[in-house]
Amino acid sequence: MSIITLLTDFGLRDPYVAEMKAVILRISPDAKIVDISHEVKKFDVRMGAFILEQAARYFPDGTVHVAVVDPGVGMERRPIIVETNRKLYVGPDNGLLMLAALKDDVRSIHKITNPRYMLEKVSRTFHGRDIFSCAAAHLANGVPPADFGPKIDNPVVPGFAEPEFVADEIVGEVVHIDGFGNIITNISLDDLGKMGLEEEGEITINLNGKMMTLRLCLAYGEVSAGDPLSIIGSSEFLEVAVNQGNAAQELNVETGDPVRVKASR
Amino acid sequence: MSIITLLTDFGLRDPYVAEMKAVILRISPDAKIVDISHEVKKFDVRMGAFILEQAARYFPDGTVHVAVVDPGVGMERRPIIVETNRKLYVGPDNGLLMLAALKDDVRSIHKITNPRYMLEKVSRTFHGRDIFSCAAAHLANGVPPADFGPKIDNPVVPGFAEPEFVADEIVGEVVHIDGFGNIITNISLDDLGKMGLEEEGEITINLNGKMMTLRLCLAYGEVSAGDPLSIIGSSEFLEVAVNQGNAAQELNVETGDPVRVKASR
Amino acid sequence: MSIITLLTDFGLRDPYVAEMKAVILRISPDAKIVDISHEVKKFDVRMGAFILEQAARYFPDGTVHVAVVDPGVGMERRPIIVETNRKLYVGPDNGLLMLAALKDDVRSIHKITNPRYMLEKVSRTFHGRDIFSCAAAHLANGVPPADFGPKIDNPVVPGFAEPEFVADEIVGEVVHIDGFGNIITNISLDDLGKMGLEEEGEITINLNGKMMTLRLCLAYGEVSAGDPLSIIGSSEFLEVAVNQGNAAQELNVETGDPVRVKASR
Repeated sequence: MSIITLLTDFGLRDPYVAEMKAVILRISPDAKIVDISHEVKKFDVRMGAFILEQAARYFPDGTVHVAVVDPGVGMERRPIIVETNRKLYVGPDNGLLMLAALKDDVRSIHKITNPRYMLEKVSRTFHGRDIFSCAAAHLANGVPPADFGPKIDNPVVPGFAEPEFVADEIVGEVVHIDGFGNIITNISLDDLGKMGLEEEGEITINLNGKMMTLRLCLAYGEVSAGDPLSIIGSSEFLEVAVNQGNAAQELNVETGDPVRVKASR
Repeated sequence: MSIITLLTDFGLRDPYVAEMKAVILRISPDAKIVDISHEVKKFDVRMGAFILEQAARYFPDGTVHVAVVDPGVGMERRPIIVETNRKLYVGPDNGLLMLAALKDDVRSIHKITNPRYMLEKVSRTFHGRDIFSCAAAHLANGVPPADFGPKIDNPVVPGFAEPEFVADEIVGEVVHIDGFGNIITNISLDDLGKMGLEEEGEITINLNGKMMTLRLCLAYGEVSAGDPLSIIGSSEFLEVAVNQGNAAQELNVETGDPVRVKASR
Repeated sequence: MSIITLLTDFGLRDPYVAEMKAVILRISPDAKIVDISHEVKKFDVRMGAFILEQAARYFPDGTVHVAVVDPGVGMERRPIIVETNRKLYVGPDNGLLMLAALKDDVRSIHKITNPRYMLEKVSRTFHGRDIFSCAAAHLANGVPPADFGPKIDNPVVPGFAEPEFVADEIVGEVVHIDGFGNIITNISLDDLGKMGLEEEGEITINLNGKMMTLRLCLAYGEVSAGDPLSIIGSSEFLEVAVNQGNAAQELNVETGDPVRVKASR
């Protein structure tokens, strides 16, 4: 029994997500469909790539991940299948899949061109249904990626900044604001270690121009409700949070904002 | 293994949808439950009917579709099962099911009266749980529609306007605004063809009194980001959209607004 | 095939819910995962407990219910498994599980301490993924609760007010506002019966200081659209509703507000 996951920016009101599931179940009736998210901000490939990469880590080998945040649907951008040593990723060639795929080892990338594995009638506005879901279901049924079309070797790779080390500072950025308002950066515990910082202690953080000294906690509850803290979150990146509050709102921070961290002293 | 789909206006915060699923799984443990939408605007039978009809097209034969947008729950409106040549539809007799059911061939309609296929205790406020989910699970188990109650032949049919042809114009209306803000009309490519219009070119469209000449595109990306366009969307109806923008907000258009289309010259 | 249900305050945008499902499916590939709600108000243990209790009633014996509304994650609060005569509940020991569990007969409560049934790496911020989902999947696989850790006998029990009888009044409170704006109280039909009130008739209700005489209806449609009514809802508690309207908004009522009911005369 194969797992097929779905991630889109379609929202849950419209029929679109159900149409994708219907197409999958017609082709692969035993597939186990799991939603990752349909609330990606419209057209925000970067948010989609981040959420996909986070969730994909936990899915078993053999999972087929379909992702559709696709402002270029129907134009020249290619529909692709990325095969890694663990999984299969299906979606548009706009960077959405590659953040997750590159964490595994990429074995091959194929462009989807074979009409045999598309819906009979392919719209130019909804490849999520007509091409990607259809391909995912056939992959779940065991069709090899090479049957879908020619190999390509120049996929679009998202340009997410890796943090840099500048003098005594780590310079990174905000990669995601979660539903709790936690501010998730691209700075890892390893990065902090390179600066001689440990998982407990204090750091000085410059968030979008605002300087703060924050306790580096192991749990949100180590500070009083309403107080800010920093923490290596479940994403394994440095987060700035407010215990039982909304850090992004209180600190007026958005995805993409710059973050600078140094030892506190 | 049967597919049972759910469409409601219940939202996802409350326990209601889970209660429906629990009832189904108690009766038909192997049923595959697929959500179509639970974000239909409260009491908006017409939006529910549109979303159900759109999604239902793609589900395999044998699917049981449960739909509950039911302002008259507990009053005289009848609980019904509509059997078509492809599917079964279960819900209130208020028009919600018939838009989809009439696209297949309707074989029979039965009123649900047999208490054997209802929960032991039937509330007068939640037939989605106590009658419709229960009936759907028994249908998935193979109970024939005739066992649920007497045949009826006068279902409520939704009065969705078909477009009209007036002089050199097609006169239709807005049937749905999707989550992207795309404005979906009840005018099909066939309707445009009857006016000598083709899938590419330009049309003059009067949307709620505002006149526009729009390129009829094959993909949203054919115009610049932020520009309006018209397109035969994935619903196979004429849409007005803004590439990577929200057409309904920018043009201040709502469901039900009149649309007039003519050749642009 | 086991049913595992999920209830959280995580929302549906972020990868968190999918990470929980991925962990479950890695351990128990045949588990049937059903979402109860992920839209519990952040940190609102009481709303979570109410929704869990409502939905849990309808799930079959043997269901494993995971619930995570967990402001104290990573601190001293214990991760627990509650075994009742019907079900298993997994989550934090903060009252979230006990409202539902106490409706069945509680057989035993175990603290989860055995690392064998946790993810290899346990974060201090996301026990929903690293401990609770993992434990639920092992329970679904048949591991007995006693294998997870020592028995405890002093769980946190939520202090939800039972209604009181004061002179000729029932004094209760608002326990939930649902998505329709229906105002759900903790007063049951039994409670009304003790005051000599029956399911039809009229009651005088004091909602947050505002006095109203309302018809006690059997269906919302018994009053005109836009008019208020009272009703024993599908939760089997007294509700104040507005037919096809939003009672909570119109009456400016919130969860926790006091309610006083007496016979109308």
